[in-house]
Amino acid sequence: MIKAGIIGSTGYAGAELAGLLLGHPEAEVVWYGSRSYVGEEYASLYRNMFRMVDAKCMDDNMEELAAQADVIFTATPQGLCASLMNDGILEKAKVVDLSADFRIKDVKIYEKWYGLEHKSPGYIGEAVYGLCEINREDVKKARLVANPGCYTTCSILTLYPLVKEGLIDVSSIIIDAKSGTSGAGRGAKVPNLFCEVNESIKAYGIAGHRHTPEIEEQLGYACGEKVVLNFTPHLVPMNRGILATAYASLRKPVSYGEVRAAYEKYYGNEFFIRLLPEGVYPETRWVEGSNFVDINFKIDGRTGRIIAVGALDNLVKGAAGQAAQNMNLMFGLPEAMGLGRAPMFP
Amino acid sequence: MIKAGIIGSTGYAGAELAGLLLGHPEAEVVWYGSRSYVGEEYASLYRNMFRMVDAKCMDDNMEELAAQADVIFTATPQGLCASLMNDGILEKAKVVDLSADFRIKDVKIYEKWYGLEHKSPGYIGEAVYGLCEINREDVKKARLVANPGCYTTCSILTLYPLVKEGLIDVSSIIIDAKSGTSGAGRGAKVPNLFCEVNESIKAYGIAGHRHTPEIEEQLGYACGEKVVLNFTPHLVPMNRGILATAYASLRKPVSYGEVRAAYEKYYGNEFFIRLLPEGVYPETRWVEGSNFVDINFKIDGRTGRIIAVGALDNLVKGAAGQAAQNMNLMFGLPEAMGLGRAPMFP
Amino acid sequence: MIKAGIIGSTGYAGAELAGLLLGHPEAEVVWYGSRSYVGEEYASLYRNMFRMVDAKCMDDNMEELAAQADVIFTATPQGLCASLMNDGILEKAKVVDLSADFRIKDVKIYEKWYGLEHKSPGYIGEAVYGLCEINREDVKKARLVANPGCYTTCSILTLYPLVKEGLIDVSSIIIDAKSGTSGAGRGAKVPNLFCEVNESIKAYGIAGHRHTPEIEEQLGYACGEKVVLNFTPHLVPMNRGILATAYASLRKPVSYGEVRAAYEKYYGNEFFIRLLPEGVYPETRWVEGSNFVDINFKIDGRTGRIIAVGALDNLVKGAAGQAAQNMNLMFGLPEAMGLGRAPMFP
Amino acid sequence: MIKAGIIGSTGYAGAELAGLLLGHPEAEVVWYGSRSYVGEEYASLYRNMFRMVDAKCMDDNMEELAAQADVIFTATPQGLCASLMNDGILEKAKVVDLSADFRIKDVKIYEKWYGLEHKSPGYIGEAVYGLCEINREDVKKARLVANPGCYTTCSILTLYPLVKEGLIDVSSIIIDAKSGTSGAGRGAKVPNLFCEVNESIKAYGIAGHRHTPEIEEQLGYACGEKVVLNFTPHLVPMNRGILATAYASLRKPVSYGEVRAAYEKYYGNEFFIRLLPEGVYPETRWVEGSNFVDINFKIDGRTGRIIAVGALDNLVKGAAGQAAQNMNLMFGLPEAMGLGRAPMFP
Repeated sequence: MIKAGIIGSTGYAGAELAGLLLGHPEAEVVWYGSRSYVGEEYASLYRNMFRMVDAKCMDDNMEELAAQADVIFTATPQGLCASLMNDGILEKAKVVDLSADFRIKDVKIYEKWYGLEHKSPGYIGEAVYGLCEINREDVKKARLVANPGCYTTCSILTLYPLVKEGLIDVSSIIIDAKSGTSGAGRGAKVPNLFCEVNESIKAYGIAGHRHTPEIEEQLGYACGEKVVLNFTPHLVPMNRGILATAYASLRKPVSYGEVRAAYEKYYGNEFFIRLLPEGVYPETRWVEGSNFVDINFKIDGRTGRIIAVGALDNLVKGAAGQAAQNMNLMFGLPEAMGLGRAPMFP
Repeated sequence: MIKAGIIGSTGYAGAELAGLLLGHPEAEVVWYGSRSYVGEEYASLYRNMFRMVDAKCMDDNMEELAAQADVIFTATPQGLCASLMNDGILEKAKVVDLSADFRIKDVKIYEKWYGLEHKSPGYIGEAVYGLCEINREDVKKARLVANPGCYTTCSILTLYPLVKEGLIDVSSIIIDAKSGTSGAGRGAKVPNLFCEVNESIKAYGIAGHRHTPEIEEQLGYACGEKVVLNFTPHLVPMNRGILATAYASLRKPVSYGEVRAAYEKYYGNEFFIRLLPEGVYPETRWVEGSNFVDINFKIDGRTGRIIAVGALDNLVKGAAGQAAQNMNLMFGLPEAMGLGRAPMFP
Repeated sequence: MIKAGIIGSTGYAGAELAGLLLGHPEAEVVWYGSRSYVGEEYASLYRNMFRMVDAKCMDDNMEELAAQADVIFTATPQGLCASLMNDGILEKAKVVDLSADFRIKDVKIYEKWYGLEHKSPGYIGEAVYGLCEINREDVKKARLVANPGCYTTCSILTLYPLVKEGLIDVSSIIIDAKSGTSGAGRGAKVPNLFCEVNESIKAYGIAGHRHTPEIEEQLGYACGEKVVLNFTPHLVPMNRGILATAYASLRKPVSYGEVRAAYEKYYGNEFFIRLLPEGVYPETRWVEGSNFVDINFKIDGRTGRIIAVGALDNLVKGAAGQAAQNMNLMFGLPEAMGLGRAPMFP
Repeated sequence: MIKAGIIGSTGYAGAELAGLLLGHPEAEVVWYGSRSYVGEEYASLYRNMFRMVDAKCMDDNMEELAAQADVIFTATPQGLCASLMNDGILEKAKVVDLSADFRIKDVKIYEKWYGLEHKSPGYIGEAVYGLCEINREDVKKARLVANPGCYTTCSILTLYPLVKEGLIDVSSIIIDAKSGTSGAGRGAKVPNLFCEVNESIKAYGIAGHRHTPEIEEQLGYACGEKVVLNFTPHLVPMNRGILATAYASLRKPVSYGEVRAAYEKYYGNEFFIRLLPEGVYPETRWVEGSNFVDINFKIDGRTGRIIAVGALDNLVKGAAGQAAQNMNLMFGLPEAMGLGRAPMFP
């Protein structure tokens, strides 16, 4: 059994990970970390876990945790993981960081978009960007994995084959994304109250959301050139789910079949990516609770653009599920172990 | 592997059962029945099952199905199962009927409340009422199980120890229940449209809901006398979940501990019933997606009443999960097999 | 024009009142009070009011406000209005208190249920309980009106004719109420976050909710004896609306028509109370945004009980609308002035 | 008093119009038309109107209606208004058509996108496109007004100043729009059931939605050249509201102030268009129930694009409110008469 510790287990992503690992045949959680609730019964904070988790919340002493665990997950605010990282930890335990600290290779870009000083830039080079479908082999060998963001996972996977195969003009990319409210976290803030979110939709972080440089960097690797794009997230009155609607100009006229072949080339054997039948588009309800990403696209001959759409569950493939998928790869387990449950509908 | 057939697999309860059996280690679905969609891809109706179910919908030929399956689930409108039942079927396959056809022992009461003629009353006597926690041993030996209703499961389990132990005046019972909208089914009806249900709550079936006689009959067995009660269901703008708030007059002053002991006596060893800590009350969010029933109660010394509250997921413990639990019992499998997933929150 | 000041104008009830008075032909708001946001643009807190309200938030200096206003509304936490009340204020301005401070005549009961010391018990006697349909004539003459609670308005109006006419056994009353989330206020608390409320229903304040003694007191006046009852509120994932489902034993067998006549006797000429056609029951969607209370009932011959159901918008008839209705009465205006808008659906 | 008839008064848009006219000081509804519910009490279909509307549904005999009414509103499926139109009607009554029949000047484009033969193309030329803020003077003189679509009103108003002033490259326009579910109408269809819409978001009509040519035509008039653009609507789990997020490449670098001046030039005096303060973006909750359109924009120097965002209530400014606004103009009334209510929040 893999012994796992979760720093930040009382946020929504951390709690989702706790639930997934509870159902994982080869892993067990030995440390439910939570800065705010040290000493409290975990199941008193997440009553869904009543009688399933019989543990109290621990602090975020990663040194001590590294001595007890085989893998550490940090589902914490930006900056925390970087501030605690050191060689001693990485020598004892593998780390999957669900925050943004090690996602962006250029530390200046990180510091600019996040408004933080990076406390351990020396580990950025080593960290593997844990988008399993793209970086599988590197993840297998990694000690430190930077688990991708929720919007970024959806956006990159939706566009990757188009960018990699040079089908679109990367300077034309516009991603209009929509997310359920769990992405905003469990912090007590007025804008996230039920009555403020319900019966409304809004854009936020227009032209300035922090997932932008992460998407740009990864798509840049795919095409070998610098990518600058527009990314606009929206808040939707639902608990879970991200839908990314991506627009780009095609570099030349292509058929549905040709583009489909590009998607099949990269995703044809991927368990967690479902290319939908022609004419059927992703809806978040069909992936809820699962690690799937549903993808499809439409070519618009009138405008010469392609509209590619992707959907995932922000707490699963967008956070905890992908973290567990990374863990599986890092420990040589079947990649889908513990992640096979069907989406829950309705 | 148990071969299972589902008649009515394209309703919400049938689809939930299909999903549960997909994750069950000892069962497989060999027949996705659906009167309305014969010949269509099952996954085109439930896109969450895309790439997980590769089957077309079959008709509701129970005779033929009995020849192919070890167990048949009927998740169909009232009357259908009764109209198809015969010895040949029961000799070949076990049957779990999720409709009301075999739940009520007095056929006149069935016919009065349901407004239907019962087509096979001869099997009512044999049928076991599949409330596993109460009738476990009988279920194990049954060929035909009448799977309880969603409201009834929640209502009966919430009140059972109080009635069984004679703690309350059964003539004083009032059950005020609230259900998510999946209980109304997938039929296209104006009152179930999003804009009609959203931002509203209503009572329905006041003093006339069909689950009333079912609750009365089962509680009557528990106390050995006739029970007549009020049951009022309400429609809540959420997908899943039932909350039952039950009121009854205590027969004599009792302490929390004394009543708690009664609950512990019957449920202390039940995996799927969670008696919450004192002062903590059920909320449907904590059981969503699981087979759990959460229960607690409050004694009101001012009025001499007890208020008992129960919560479950109407599609799981209230329908498909309990059906799978019954199947496990009928086939000698561990009762919780395939039903262990943690509630999904948020 | 009546000059109105609102202490607590940045809570949901206060803001609803601000919006209603904006559309009132004979009133204008001269003071948008808000302890938390003094000096901030009101429309920056309620963007719906952008370009409609061009004022900054004021403090809660009631003395000063009394000098400027003809009527003061206090939509504030319990205790504040009582702590500020004095003769000087009441000599200069009429006061409608939306908090509970002056609703309960027995100060000991207030202090017990609210856990507060009452700071100005001397004004309790003078205060008129502002349930307009019951206390209309007293309200007209009042200087100080205690605006009823949201649950209480719905509960009392639903049961009043039954109690007043002696049709029910008052010791048998059970009120099971359900409210939208705006009733919980705009405070930033984890239990009121979107993801905590959405897709769930729960009971709270079981056998201890503060609106209980208020209902008991008022129904007690109606029947001339002490009333002790059960009241259980529930939180529903919707913004607005309260539904009260009330149960009571009939003192003797009665027909629908007889009970209907009792309701007609008291409400037949009431503009804001709509007795629905027989067989049609209240749903909160039909009153949303309006000052209406919809009411109907069902007699259950099997149990000898009556089930009466009422619905209102908790922010309108349950708070701000009733406050404006009281203001209209106090200033000799037509009672429905500014309150005539049709319910908004969907 | 203007006598108004509504053909299609039992759809959501028709019902919203009925409610608005009920509160209009100079109009009254004399004909509640409804093909499906002829002879039924209007208030039995819309219980919010109980005791406010005491009328039975009429058929859709426009000839007869024209004899009784001063203005006819058709809130009907595409094709119906065109099929009934004739000189006799227009000589007797003014007509505001809420369907698409007279919105598009090129009948071939209408027939291609709607898949219908136009039954009275002779009236297309006369019809005025009733986007009041753009075509006010023409509306005042019109007999026949084509009331704009919900998405189109939001999209056009959001982009109009940019297009009119030549600030953007019109070939680069992408509109990603999101709508509440009332836009899908009150028809009983599985995809619009509560459980299908709730907890999900999806795109639909990708590259083929019928509002596309309407937006293109109107923006084409603004810039004097042919416009071809991408428009993608999404379905959001809420009752009301449309948010349009529009992207376009700036033709040259401009400051916020310069673009703001363009918006002020066209909208500075418009009552129903609210240009939000810099840095504040539209959210549908702030316009719900009102005739307002909230607009703002962000310039992204990195990509050279502008992101303009608009929000409105699809049933008010997107349908019934705008229809009433057109009526006001056509009859020489103050444009905002009966439309002044503040947005309802929460």
